[in-house]
Amino acid sequence: MSSSIGKNIRLSIFGASHGTAIGGVIDGLPAGEKVDLEALRRFMARRAPGRNALQTQRQEKDEVHFLAGLVEAQTSGSPLAYYINNGDHHSKDYANLRDIPRPSHADYTAILRYGEAVDMRGGGHFSGRLTAPLCVAGGIALQLLKKRGILIGAHLKQVGAIQDAPLDKANPNMEAFEALQEKEIPMLSEAASEATKTMLTEVRAAGDSVGAIIEAVATGIPGGLGNPIFDGLENRLAQMLFGIPGVKGVSFGSGFAGCLERGSEQNDPFYMVGDKIVTAKNNSGGIQGGITNGMPIVLQVGMKPTPSIAQKQDSVSLSAGENRELEIVGRHDPCIALRAVPVVEAALAYIILDFLEEK
Amino acid sequence: MSSSIGKNIRLSIFGASHGTAIGGVIDGLPAGEKVDLEALRRFMARRAPGRNALQTQRQEKDEVHFLAGLVEAQTSGSPLAYYINNGDHHSKDYANLRDIPRPSHADYTAILRYGEAVDMRGGGHFSGRLTAPLCVAGGIALQLLKKRGILIGAHLKQVGAIQDAPLDKANPNMEAFEALQEKEIPMLSEAASEATKTMLTEVRAAGDSVGAIIEAVATGIPGGLGNPIFDGLENRLAQMLFGIPGVKGVSFGSGFAGCLERGSEQNDPFYMVGDKIVTAKNNSGGIQGGITNGMPIVLQVGMKPTPSIAQKQDSVSLSAGENRELEIVGRHDPCIALRAVPVVEAALAYIILDFLEEK
Amino acid sequence: MSSSIGKNIRLSIFGASHGTAIGGVIDGLPAGEKVDLEALRRFMARRAPGRNALQTQRQEKDEVHFLAGLVEAQTSGSPLAYYINNGDHHSKDYANLRDIPRPSHADYTAILRYGEAVDMRGGGHFSGRLTAPLCVAGGIALQLLKKRGILIGAHLKQVGAIQDAPLDKANPNMEAFEALQEKEIPMLSEAASEATKTMLTEVRAAGDSVGAIIEAVATGIPGGLGNPIFDGLENRLAQMLFGIPGVKGVSFGSGFAGCLERGSEQNDPFYMVGDKIVTAKNNSGGIQGGITNGMPIVLQVGMKPTPSIAQKQDSVSLSAGENRELEIVGRHDPCIALRAVPVVEAALAYIILDFLEEK
Amino acid sequence: MSSSIGKNIRLSIFGASHGTAIGGVIDGLPAGEKVDLEALRRFMARRAPGRNALQTQRQEKDEVHFLAGLVEAQTSGSPLAYYINNGDHHSKDYANLRDIPRPSHADYTAILRYGEAVDMRGGGHFSGRLTAPLCVAGGIALQLLKKRGILIGAHLKQVGAIQDAPLDKANPNMEAFEALQEKEIPMLSEAASEATKTMLTEVRAAGDSVGAIIEAVATGIPGGLGNPIFDGLENRLAQMLFGIPGVKGVSFGSGFAGCLERGSEQNDPFYMVGDKIVTAKNNSGGIQGGITNGMPIVLQVGMKPTPSIAQKQDSVSLSAGENRELEIVGRHDPCIALRAVPVVEAALAYIILDFLEEK
Repeated sequence: MSSSIGKNIRLSIFGASHGTAIGGVIDGLPAGEKVDLEALRRFMARRAPGRNALQTQRQEKDEVHFLAGLVEAQTSGSPLAYYINNGDHHSKDYANLRDIPRPSHADYTAILRYGEAVDMRGGGHFSGRLTAPLCVAGGIALQLLKKRGILIGAHLKQVGAIQDAPLDKANPNMEAFEALQEKEIPMLSEAASEATKTMLTEVRAAGDSVGAIIEAVATGIPGGLGNPIFDGLENRLAQMLFGIPGVKGVSFGSGFAGCLERGSEQNDPFYMVGDKIVTAKNNSGGIQGGITNGMPIVLQVGMKPTPSIAQKQDSVSLSAGENRELEIVGRHDPCIALRAVPVVEAALAYIILDFLEEK
Repeated sequence: MSSSIGKNIRLSIFGASHGTAIGGVIDGLPAGEKVDLEALRRFMARRAPGRNALQTQRQEKDEVHFLAGLVEAQTSGSPLAYYINNGDHHSKDYANLRDIPRPSHADYTAILRYGEAVDMRGGGHFSGRLTAPLCVAGGIALQLLKKRGILIGAHLKQVGAIQDAPLDKANPNMEAFEALQEKEIPMLSEAASEATKTMLTEVRAAGDSVGAIIEAVATGIPGGLGNPIFDGLENRLAQMLFGIPGVKGVSFGSGFAGCLERGSEQNDPFYMVGDKIVTAKNNSGGIQGGITNGMPIVLQVGMKPTPSIAQKQDSVSLSAGENRELEIVGRHDPCIALRAVPVVEAALAYIILDFLEEK
Repeated sequence: MSSSIGKNIRLSIFGASHGTAIGGVIDGLPAGEKVDLEALRRFMARRAPGRNALQTQRQEKDEVHFLAGLVEAQTSGSPLAYYINNGDHHSKDYANLRDIPRPSHADYTAILRYGEAVDMRGGGHFSGRLTAPLCVAGGIALQLLKKRGILIGAHLKQVGAIQDAPLDKANPNMEAFEALQEKEIPMLSEAASEATKTMLTEVRAAGDSVGAIIEAVATGIPGGLGNPIFDGLENRLAQMLFGIPGVKGVSFGSGFAGCLERGSEQNDPFYMVGDKIVTAKNNSGGIQGGITNGMPIVLQVGMKPTPSIAQKQDSVSLSAGENRELEIVGRHDPCIALRAVPVVEAALAYIILDFLEEK
Repeated sequence: MSSSIGKNIRLSIFGASHGTAIGGVIDGLPAGEKVDLEALRRFMARRAPGRNALQTQRQEKDEVHFLAGLVEAQTSGSPLAYYINNGDHHSKDYANLRDIPRPSHADYTAILRYGEAVDMRGGGHFSGRLTAPLCVAGGIALQLLKKRGILIGAHLKQVGAIQDAPLDKANPNMEAFEALQEKEIPMLSEAASEATKTMLTEVRAAGDSVGAIIEAVATGIPGGLGNPIFDGLENRLAQMLFGIPGVKGVSFGSGFAGCLERGSEQNDPFYMVGDKIVTAKNNSGGIQGGITNGMPIVLQVGMKPTPSIAQKQDSVSLSAGENRELEIVGRHDPCIALRAVPVVEAALAYIILDFLEEK
């Protein structure tokens, strides 16, 4: 189904941006796992809007209400169900979008797919707001992974022309990634972070937006996780990552750039370090043939610029069949990728946990 | 399951590089469809090795034997099953690889996953040879799509530093793509093609290899195909494309580069052309919110350099737990992406057909 | 996943008997369908406890709260999510059952499966209470089917030794079935209904319980629905029906009794009636080779006696590893099959709708 | 998909009765398991036709050809693929069946579902012959289970009015079941076996057929296997068992008869025997709440009479839209259930192995 993912742990998410609530059901979590609800709240806050001047001013408390599957903050083995109420929505801002679809949004394709009954206020079920229930599932997965020695971090690898300091794919500094969780601009380089801040302020002032490349890493991964061909780590991770609104590319290890190198540069020779088999560069991103080799998992996600911009754009009236100019009113992020960083971490955590539950 | 894909039409592939045979089962093809077996044979030949000096000299006739599901070259509605015999294998070339895994191959991870019983001669089930059964399924899908007005083409967008002429994403020249099917180097630009040929000859002579970026396009796509969140076109296509050995990245439309642009540059405004709604640049690659908008589907696939190179490489002896030098004997492609071009077409065709069969 | 079902329309149910709430998510309902919430409420009431003296006196209002997927009582195409609060539970009645499992309940197997963390108060996720979210999904399906000319009914075919009047499998009287919806004992024969009422009163007084066979029928079914082998009507229906707690048998058409007849008696010859092809006896229950033939679907469900009885029973102390006597306190149905009749209708409706959504 | 089953080990079967071959692919078998091919051959022989006078005289050697997944009779971890050639078919016997469908066969429903292209010679993909690839998978599963201490047997519980000696559900005599494998009529009671033989001879002479109830049992089952609600042992077993052509009912433990008893009779009290928890009667058939309790799994399968009978029957001409008399020529089993006994064993073994592979 369209809004479900996972093989051993199945996540179904529901809700629309301006409906009653959004939420999810997670079927297959191991029983007897304590969930730190305060840590989950802090993780959710990283995704929530309105934290600073560079984000949409829509206020969402994103308080998670649990309906089932948790007894005294411990998983009971049966499906974990939860919802988050929708509150602060300005549905009237979206009144004319039914007829004049926003460029590069799903307004038009949703009507093609579902007909007139589809609820596209605020982006409906296609809204980035649906990443909140994903973050509940991923936030819980992050906690379970941490207990198993697996750490996950992510940064903005590039925003426009501004590149962050490169990640050491073979030996990532996970403390540095942990420190990013508190930062307004999650970049390893202070200079890049400052430059990005300046750029985003300009972009915002211009009524424009910008995309970015997010890079995530997971350490402590056991070898031998995954499957060949169509159900390896990369396949299932890509299936989930392309579920984050705005993602247009997913790559692993040294990514597309690595694909332009020679085999002699790109290959990952094996070495013994003590009794452990490692590779020096980890260009493979910890995955060979769909299966983990014990090195860190490294992946990149390309996220397009927020399609909602304040500038006038061309569009059409679906009813009139004529060209129209469109001006989008509302509150939007100049760079949605800022808030997508924890979402990518959540997706990575979720899929790793899903594979760990495979025999 | 790991070796199966598709929701409405389910493909299961089987086989190992040096086993008896490779093959597949396709469950859910529409009944009553004529299959042009000669056209299928020609399509398969594009993937087969040994066609020219730039490819491995392993000879495989790749003749497809049908076991079920075709009656007088027409689909009968029940699962279509087929196999291709393995012939020309030099298993002894792989004798020492059980103990000394090849860098950036799945030798090591396969043993971690399956233990000693795994058959990794020639790459086993992880071998690029498994793309042959994928091409049978995709080749049939291509024929069914053509009858429905959908055309598919692909080219090498970039090999090393050499870039092909850019694709017009909104109005691709499908005749040009059709002409590429006969070419040794499937690039639109004659100059780029020549430069690549020269480069590959050098790479081969150096006992090295090189990766590439493949770009594919599909035209004639109806709007409204796909689903939101986790089961859109991008999700299911990525799941299949990452099943092609060597793929390390998948992107759509303007890809990762587009993610570094501004919203005002990247957005796809809508226009009426006659009574049709189109976009001018098709940066979205025909997909918004996981659903087709009627523009061509455009995607890129990053394929790493063939990991089998003739140069000496570092590795380890699994039994001795010591570093070892490894020299890979055998016949290898300097740029496996050359032969992967029809495989990418096959995957794209297969998934489009799968979505067309969705109600 | 364990708590999900359906291929084209996916239902996930969640909740535990004594948790916060029970509920479900339905992914894939067609968009733009009006739901009659008052008719749904009446349908739910047929399953709810406490309606009459022959049922458990546990009071549950079973009011359905919708979180997503309905806009002004119309399906929007995105997942429909809902919950029902748990109210009137006496968890202390179940205090000692953690250590002394109730015979023929899931108390013991749940601990084997999930360990100590499992929440089995009131039967937990295994409780018959979980049929309420199933009835929400099935109740909506019944409404959609009715609009498509498909009617569904069910009766108690047999309770203990008391048999209801036989169903005419080829020409069922659907008005008679509709009338059963208001009856305390849903049997076609008044005499059988009275006898059952007397028997249930005695059974209740004896602190005992009794099982029953429920029979359901669906008319107006288009021919050609379903699939061969493992995903026919019978397979998918059985998968859902065995999800109703207490079901120990599922059969179709003339059922097990028909399997003891001769082919000459049991076969369903075809006849033309006007331009329609029919069978006279419909021993096949409308399904041949997993696919509908246009005749009514007929099925039987065997439901075991309520395992919670007031009589003393033998059991063991899991902690002490010793035999123990157990006396179950609480409020129980003498014949749970009474309330399971609408649940069987719901399951039948759900699966038919799921197949109708298949291309 | 329709012709696939299993969650952790996925079986896809293919083929048609009069096509080139039938076969299957099994994805997910554990690696490194030795397969005794001679034992598999003997198991297959129990299902094969033509063994004695009470069976169809169609001769099929049913020799299994392996294409992949076995290296020196040991599973390699990658999908195991195999086929069996079709040989001795008399397709002309079926020439007129395209227009005049056989009563209680899938001839008519297959055309409704797939249209004219469907290949229904000999029953096509719907033929009982498709149980041969199922038996390959189940025969391998039986061997793997045996190594894990799990034994499986089955008998004809009832044929027409003739009942076999009852099975002791709590303590089945597995040696007695093993001895049945060599018998013409697999019944525990010699008298019942003789009476059945006499009856079948009469039925055959009368050009008629008869159905039967098959009962199967599995011992050595670990407790805690399975899941609640929709994916328990009963659900997945029923999904597979209804895939055997002719099956019209599936029940567990004391079956439908047990559903007519009182709770005080039917309940399964627990007792300590040494340090093991057992039940005395095992009316639950080893499964409570979809999960095994460690007692033997017991199930019954109702199989309708072979629909192909030699007597004249009524049918219709699809092209003329008129009633017609039909006389089926060909070689048919008077009681197909005789040959279905190993098929039921195979299905039971397959699903148990599938659950054992669940984490």
